Amino acid sequence: MHSDRIEKILAEVAAGGKDVAAAMEELKHLPYEDLGCATLDHHRALRQGFPEVVFGQGKSVAQMETIIAALLAKGGNVLATRVSPVKGKKLLQRFPQAVYHADARCLTIEQHPIELRGRGKILVVCAGTSDIPVAAEALVTARMMGNETEKLYDVGVAGLHRLLSRHTLLRQAAVVIVVAGMEGALPSVVGGLVEKPVIAVPTSVGYGAAFNGVAALLGMLNSCAAGVTVVNIDNGFGAAYAASLMNRTQP
Amino acid sequence: MHSDRIEKILAEVAAGGKDVAAAMEELKHLPYEDLGCATLDHHRALRQGFPEVVFGQGKSVAQMETIIAALLAKGGNVLATRVSPVKGKKLLQRFPQAVYHADARCLTIEQHPIELRGRGKILVVCAGTSDIPVAAEALVTARMMGNETEKLYDVGVAGLHRLLSRHTLLRQAAVVIVVAGMEGALPSVVGGLVEKPVIAVPTSVGYGAAFNGVAALLGMLNSCAAGVTVVNIDNGFGAAYAASLMNRTQP
Amino acid sequence: MHSDRIEKILAEVAAGGKDVAAAMEELKHLPYEDLGCATLDHHRALRQGFPEVVFGQGKSVAQMETIIAALLAKGGNVLATRVSPVKGKKLLQRFPQAVYHADARCLTIEQHPIELRGRGKILVVCAGTSDIPVAAEALVTARMMGNETEKLYDVGVAGLHRLLSRHTLLRQAAVVIVVAGMEGALPSVVGGLVEKPVIAVPTSVGYGAAFNGVAALLGMLNSCAAGVTVVNIDNGFGAAYAASLMNRTQP
Amino acid sequence: MHSDRIEKILAEVAAGGKDVAAAMEELKHLPYEDLGCATLDHHRALRQGFPEVVFGQGKSVAQMETIIAALLAKGGNVLATRVSPVKGKKLLQRFPQAVYHADARCLTIEQHPIELRGRGKILVVCAGTSDIPVAAEALVTARMMGNETEKLYDVGVAGLHRLLSRHTLLRQAAVVIVVAGMEGALPSVVGGLVEKPVIAVPTSVGYGAAFNGVAALLGMLNSCAAGVTVVNIDNGFGAAYAASLMNRTQP
Amino acid sequence: MHSDRIEKILAEVAAGGKDVAAAMEELKHLPYEDLGCATLDHHRALRQGFPEVVFGQGKSVAQMETIIAALLAKGGNVLATRVSPVKGKKLLQRFPQAVYHADARCLTIEQHPIELRGRGKILVVCAGTSDIPVAAEALVTARMMGNETEKLYDVGVAGLHRLLSRHTLLRQAAVVIVVAGMEGALPSVVGGLVEKPVIAVPTSVGYGAAFNGVAALLGMLNSCAAGVTVVNIDNGFGAAYAASLMNRTQP
Amino acid sequence: MHSDRIEKILAEVAAGGKDVAAAMEELKHLPYEDLGCATLDHHRALRQGFPEVVFGQGKSVAQMETIIAALLAKGGNVLATRVSPVKGKKLLQRFPQAVYHADARCLTIEQHPIELRGRGKILVVCAGTSDIPVAAEALVTARMMGNETEKLYDVGVAGLHRLLSRHTLLRQAAVVIVVAGMEGALPSVVGGLVEKPVIAVPTSVGYGAAFNGVAALLGMLNSCAAGVTVVNIDNGFGAAYAASLMNRTQP
Amino acid sequence: MHSDRIEKILAEVAAGGKDVAAAMEELKHLPYEDLGCATLDHHRALRQGFPEVVFGQGKSVAQMETIIAALLAKGGNVLATRVSPVKGKKLLQRFPQAVYHADARCLTIEQHPIELRGRGKILVVCAGTSDIPVAAEALVTARMMGNETEKLYDVGVAGLHRLLSRHTLLRQAAVVIVVAGMEGALPSVVGGLVEKPVIAVPTSVGYGAAFNGVAALLGMLNSCAAGVTVVNIDNGFGAAYAASLMNRTQP
Amino acid sequence: MHSDRIEKILAEVAAGGKDVAAAMEELKHLPYEDLGCATLDHHRALRQGFPEVVFGQGKSVAQMETIIAALLAKGGNVLATRVSPVKGKKLLQRFPQAVYHADARCLTIEQHPIELRGRGKILVVCAGTSDIPVAAEALVTARMMGNETEKLYDVGVAGLHRLLSRHTLLRQAAVVIVVAGMEGALPSVVGGLVEKPVIAVPTSVGYGAAFNGVAALLGMLNSCAAGVTVVNIDNGFGAAYAASLMNRTQP
Repeated sequence: MHSDRIEKILAEVAAGGKDVAAAMEELKHLPYEDLGCATLDHHRALRQGFPEVVFGQGKSVAQMETIIAALLAKGGNVLATRVSPVKGKKLLQRFPQAVYHADARCLTIEQHPIELRGRGKILVVCAGTSDIPVAAEALVTARMMGNETEKLYDVGVAGLHRLLSRHTLLRQAAVVIVVAGMEGALPSVVGGLVEKPVIAVPTSVGYGAAFNGVAALLGMLNSCAAGVTVVNIDNGFGAAYAASLMNRTQP
Repeated sequence: MHSDRIEKILAEVAAGGKDVAAAMEELKHLPYEDLGCATLDHHRALRQGFPEVVFGQGKSVAQMETIIAALLAKGGNVLATRVSPVKGKKLLQRFPQAVYHADARCLTIEQHPIELRGRGKILVVCAGTSDIPVAAEALVTARMMGNETEKLYDVGVAGLHRLLSRHTLLRQAAVVIVVAGMEGALPSVVGGLVEKPVIAVPTSVGYGAAFNGVAALLGMLNSCAAGVTVVNIDNGFGAAYAASLMNRTQP
Repeated sequence: MHSDRIEKILAEVAAGGKDVAAAMEELKHLPYEDLGCATLDHHRALRQGFPEVVFGQGKSVAQMETIIAALLAKGGNVLATRVSPVKGKKLLQRFPQAVYHADARCLTIEQHPIELRGRGKILVVCAGTSDIPVAAEALVTARMMGNETEKLYDVGVAGLHRLLSRHTLLRQAAVVIVVAGMEGALPSVVGGLVEKPVIAVPTSVGYGAAFNGVAALLGMLNSCAAGVTVVNIDNGFGAAYAASLMNRTQP
Repeated sequence: MHSDRIEKILAEVAAGGKDVAAAMEELKHLPYEDLGCATLDHHRALRQGFPEVVFGQGKSVAQMETIIAALLAKGGNVLATRVSPVKGKKLLQRFPQAVYHADARCLTIEQHPIELRGRGKILVVCAGTSDIPVAAEALVTARMMGNETEKLYDVGVAGLHRLLSRHTLLRQAAVVIVVAGMEGALPSVVGGLVEKPVIAVPTSVGYGAAFNGVAALLGMLNSCAAGVTVVNIDNGFGAAYAASLMNRTQP
Repeated sequence: MHSDRIEKILAEVAAGGKDVAAAMEELKHLPYEDLGCATLDHHRALRQGFPEVVFGQGKSVAQMETIIAALLAKGGNVLATRVSPVKGKKLLQRFPQAVYHADARCLTIEQHPIELRGRGKILVVCAGTSDIPVAAEALVTARMMGNETEKLYDVGVAGLHRLLSRHTLLRQAAVVIVVAGMEGALPSVVGGLVEKPVIAVPTSVGYGAAFNGVAALLGMLNSCAAGVTVVNIDNGFGAAYAASLMNRTQP
Repeated sequence: MHSDRIEKILAEVAAGGKDVAAAMEELKHLPYEDLGCATLDHHRALRQGFPEVVFGQGKSVAQMETIIAALLAKGGNVLATRVSPVKGKKLLQRFPQAVYHADARCLTIEQHPIELRGRGKILVVCAGTSDIPVAAEALVTARMMGNETEKLYDVGVAGLHRLLSRHTLLRQAAVVIVVAGMEGALPSVVGGLVEKPVIAVPTSVGYGAAFNGVAALLGMLNSCAAGVTVVNIDNGFGAAYAASLMNRTQP
Repeated sequence: MHSDRIEKILAEVAAGGKDVAAAMEELKHLPYEDLGCATLDHHRALRQGFPEVVFGQGKSVAQMETIIAALLAKGGNVLATRVSPVKGKKLLQRFPQAVYHADARCLTIEQHPIELRGRGKILVVCAGTSDIPVAAEALVTARMMGNETEKLYDVGVAGLHRLLSRHTLLRQAAVVIVVAGMEGALPSVVGGLVEKPVIAVPTSVGYGAAFNGVAALLGMLNSCAAGVTVVNIDNGFGAAYAASLMNRTQP
Repeated sequence: MHSDRIEKILAEVAAGGKDVAAAMEELKHLPYEDLGCATLDHHRALRQGFPEVVFGQGKSVAQMETIIAALLAKGGNVLATRVSPVKGKKLLQRFPQAVYHADARCLTIEQHPIELRGRGKILVVCAGTSDIPVAAEALVTARMMGNETEKLYDVGVAGLHRLLSRHTLLRQAAVVIVVAGMEGALPSVVGGLVEKPVIAVPTSVGYGAAFNGVAALLGMLNSCAAGVTVVNIDNGFGAAYAASLMNRTQP
């Protein structure tokens, strides 16, 4: 809750430099910005070296342009997730400096070089080719948040040799993000092979009794491998955000 | 629908040895037996060399005694499933020739030696120690139905080396029954390792989002390994019955 | 897990013909192929005489063309499932030797004659005309996997005479696949009539409380006929794959 | 809504024999009776020749004694459902003229002979022996409501010959109540055999994916046989009540 | 199960006029007709004076034309349900003698006058204007099946006076079909007002926690008014079919 | 139930000015109006000073024009909810005096000034920008129903300072409507800050395990803050309607 | 958030009477009290004239005694909910001044007379006798919170005349709490009869598809009567708490 | 997969010190131990400095004694979770050196001092007093795994001041475990206040629509605060295990 700022206000009040009414008033104008359609927290982004983030789903191109322009004006990097190819194309016209990551459905703008702040690599593993969009969203996010990343795709549990032959890669990661749909068994297998935090991301891949990711979600929540935590279905961004916090150099 | 009998009846009618009314009447007295509380099909059991089966759950000791006595009178072997230790103890007093399998919660009576009728071995694999009651029920059932059996317990996916080190056992089976609770991932892994029919049995083992076996059930239905079929939660008997049909020598 | 290959590698290491690092490296290049968007197991297909399989749902025509071309280069037969008519038409232009099965939404390419490897016939039964796409997918799959097949359509339980009049057909099958939507009662009835493995396939046919196949799925999992196993909703392919394993000549 | 009485009140008001306030007041004292813990409608019972009904579940023996005594004082017959053996035993001590139906968990008191008011027989069919308590509740209820009844038990769909051999019984019924747990397929089969109203009663019999009757309920709601309607899980009373209305002589 | 026919066959076999093989063969050619895409039961329709019925949902115009033409050739009346306006328009071009009922999404063809066979009127009640399509489907169906019908629309429980003012209409019906979405409370209220069979039809009307009709369905299954039975969500046809059976003159 | 009118009728009957039949007849013509597709209650609207309300979802423009015209003829104000921009545009052409509120998807027509009838302000709080359509619907509704309103948008629980800095606004409200999707935690936080009725509105905002608003709905029903009541998912109108009743000057 | 206190602290800091560290420290000792097993908010209770409340479910008698003693020491009245008869009896021994309300499973201690603070009466309506415990909890709570109360029990929708004959009672209430299980239809009917806030409380009364209150909950959330808000299943306390806030004299 | 050991075996084979058969054999005797009822991985425990862990739920005292004795023989510390007070008491008799943690339902035996291996503190926060058992299990687990720990109990979102006044504690943690039942909103609020990994643990605390923790689980999965990951309902152990991995000094 911005206690630094609050402490400063308290101190000023104490020092007589600010009266109570003014202090109350000031609390109302902490640095967030009203764009008409969205208020975004710049604080955290600035403090963490994280990019500004826009969740693109359900937003019009016009809304996104307004938000992205405002974010760019802050000077930081920008990450927009859940951006369809059509929207991506239009945003590239407005922001030629942007990069659109088709596999991840993400758009990124780097106004300054990304500073590496992690202790180790974040490895993104996925089970099938249909899980790639979610895995790629995690990958782009993790990189934008200042992490070294690695990927290991299409290593489902029904073909274990693919996974086992990459054992070294698994062991070298600081955090592992495992993306899987259908029965969602991969995080349990990976969790049994590594001794690092494993973040499981269920995907809506599958049909019938997959129930749009519910089967994978339940499988992951019931993982018999300790050390596995779970995020929402298709939430590649959230997994990478959490992984970034786990991978920070200072505790 | 007992077409042999029906064909015989038709033939007798054709031969003039039986009139229509008699034929209709006879259809009503096909060899099933009314015990007041349960009518059991002896036909299939007799033809298949299968034991007579009693589903013990929800039946009183008195009911079970009546049914078992009637079945024994037929001369065949008897398998009672879902028999609690308390009930088992009482039934042993009445039927001293019976064997109570505590781990499987089953009671068996062998009035004649079991004839082996299968093409190969039925292997029962289970993920955790809590899954053993269901696995053992499958094992007892498969053996009573004339199959050679083998077991491989406590080989969950979070400790793959246990499973992989038993690879030969897996490859030698004709049918594999895989019993698992929690996330139910084991059948996918086994299905990727063997090229035989795999029958997956979800168990109600787990807590919270395991939802009494629903998580495992959904995981198994969505298995990414082709060749996996699924039975009801905790249905070790049904899995072994289906495995026995798959393992028969004559197609 | 390709233990033959691994044993060979171990033997070479033992013989001094290969050092440890080389052995580790070789494990990473087992014969699967990276197509950018999908890695497919050729091993099993080759060993089993099975076709190469592409799951078409969610794949673009371009992706499918790449995958199919790669598979054809292996010399085997190809089966693509969940191929919409529009996609099917485009793939036929690229692969004129292909056959598109409209009722099954499948595309097949036979580069060499299919070798019959089954013990008996696989019979595909379906309840209503709306279930035909799933039944036909099972039928095409079973045939491509080297089985003799037979079909019995539109024999729902509300008109039992249709089913009963085909009793001989049921008895002659080695494995029966039963496809049904709505209440999913047909596998129970069929399971009571035959003494062969019955694979139940729930379909998403129905409306309201059918819940896109959930009602049929639950019905089948709770079948009162022993010997019935179940696959995922609309999974005609999986049922036929499992049936093929059950129908193999060598255990 | 007791329109006869209301019309009478209106008429009296019209005739000047009753003022408005009195009319309003009278509406508050229509013939239902407050027993402290339950208000019961005697109107319908009296008019229909139906017995007074007590739903025993969740009521103490003391509460039931109070209610039954009040009902007896009205002069009609009494039917109490969901009465456990323990409660039944205690109620028999208080009401020696009562009959306790152990299989149906019902208690009945006939103060006057039951008048037959139906057009035909109500047939109660059930699938398995575990469904008998619900079926028996339906049977007792139907008889108490003035119907001729018949029963056909233990005729599950996995053994169709049992059902088919009783075809005549099915054809002679005016209304058929079909009670089944597990997959709940029996009403579809019966509905295909008869051309009479079929009332399906799902039971909570089963385990695992039976979900305490949900599988059977969904199966029945999705019945492919037209003419089937459904009541709540285990609601044998409700089925018989509805069947009685269908079976009345005057439309 | 066409026992008349079977009895005849049996009799012929007995009389020596038919041999066993011929009898078995004949069972396979009972009078249903294969149209390539659908086999329909004409038996019941003919016997009951019911129209031939086509479930239009999911069928192409071409398929429907084939089926309807075949049905017309039988000489009976035809009812097609779930026919969209677009399909309806095309079918009218092919079958100019047809009538398209826009509110009910039904198409009917009367080749001969409908014979009234009911004991009384079937009344269709619905709660809101959005429920009308389902109510109208029930109304058209009931009329085509030889019943006098009446309707009472837009009488939801939140405005009881509308319903109560039509009390006479309710009392005059032989069977009442009550159609309601959202909370599905109307059948309970109607069931408390009449002493006739009430068939409740939940509709998928509503949003959010209506869950496409599940809320209404559950409400109806738990109706506190005895005598209410339920059909599937949006199943106006099924309700009318069941109501027709209940309303038949001969038990 | 219009007891004033009924009392008047009763009084007239009593006074001899009206006979019973006429009284019964009159009950059928209470002032609601049949528009062919919808019957609307004008009574409540008139008595409460509330606008006439049309639920636009699922209604055609033609239907809405008919209904709105009929409502305007009554002389009151009109509120149409769930009006898409396309429909809104067309309705504006027909009713140029209307105002279309794009954020709220509502259309309003004020034929006379809105009379303020509330005790205090109704405050509408929402968690995220995606929740605005539902919040705005509540806001427009509350204003049309004669309340002073205030809004507080984009104050989700993950950025508490935004909410806390507006503490005064919260304290000044008479009723607070809290609109939130995803985890639906905001009503608990607000409920802990104010001592006024809080009406929680879950929205369908979110993805994956949000299940179209179910997660938010459950969260709100389980709120640990006493004084919170809940309405259906996305039901901004219903929340404002209830809030208006709570805010009325006369109890 | 205790802004009065915070303002005071701010003011003291401003006045130099308190330094920043002391201010921060003081925030940690706001007047809530740690009892080892529970921290309770006395603030709200004191300010509102509400009783102190203990949720008894899951607490031991010893825990409850500790908490109640601590609350009594504050001088206010005490309300304990979800107190079983056994616990109630023991608590009465310890607190002889307490009253145990058996029907409501509540225990109350009035150390000072309850001050009436409401604008009007709170009416508690319930559908069936099994709903009484929840209704009585609401009644006791509402009275303890300073409201005049009235009750109307056993007026289910299947017997509307009971409800309609009490119309005056309904109209005189300021807030109506409606308690119902099974299909939960009563709030819709009541909501259509009154123009006051209606708080619906689903109960877990019922069986089968009632799903422990889910059917009633969904019914209430989908109520077609505007002005109805809903609380959690069996939450009579919460309903009364919300009703008390709505009934307060000062907005 | 124990690649160190495997590499060693490979190296020995390469060096000629081991033949292939011996190598295969050795793979089967990796250091896990068969206790008849459970096979436990000691590898991970030894390598991580973690205690040996026994999941006590569903195990008999005899089974637990066998397992604990075997674990103690290894020389490490032991943690048993889900140990009821009765079982705890019996185990203390057998293992007098053990400590039973009543609030956490855990039993611990420290054979050697716990080595601190974490980077910072693990803070366990819980919402209500009923959540304490799960929180305490997390706390004991985290401490046994070599972490400094801190706790912050009874700080639910409906009383935010309690949480906010402990802001410093929150900021000092390296990882925060947040335990909450009912609506599960606390992790979102905490996640918005800290910039550290937050592990959310839903509990089964609540009633009605809490659905034994499902409401809390869904709330947490949909948390609007990025950086929150989730474990299974009531899984305090799993949360602490994952937190320990996150808190390790070497990446």
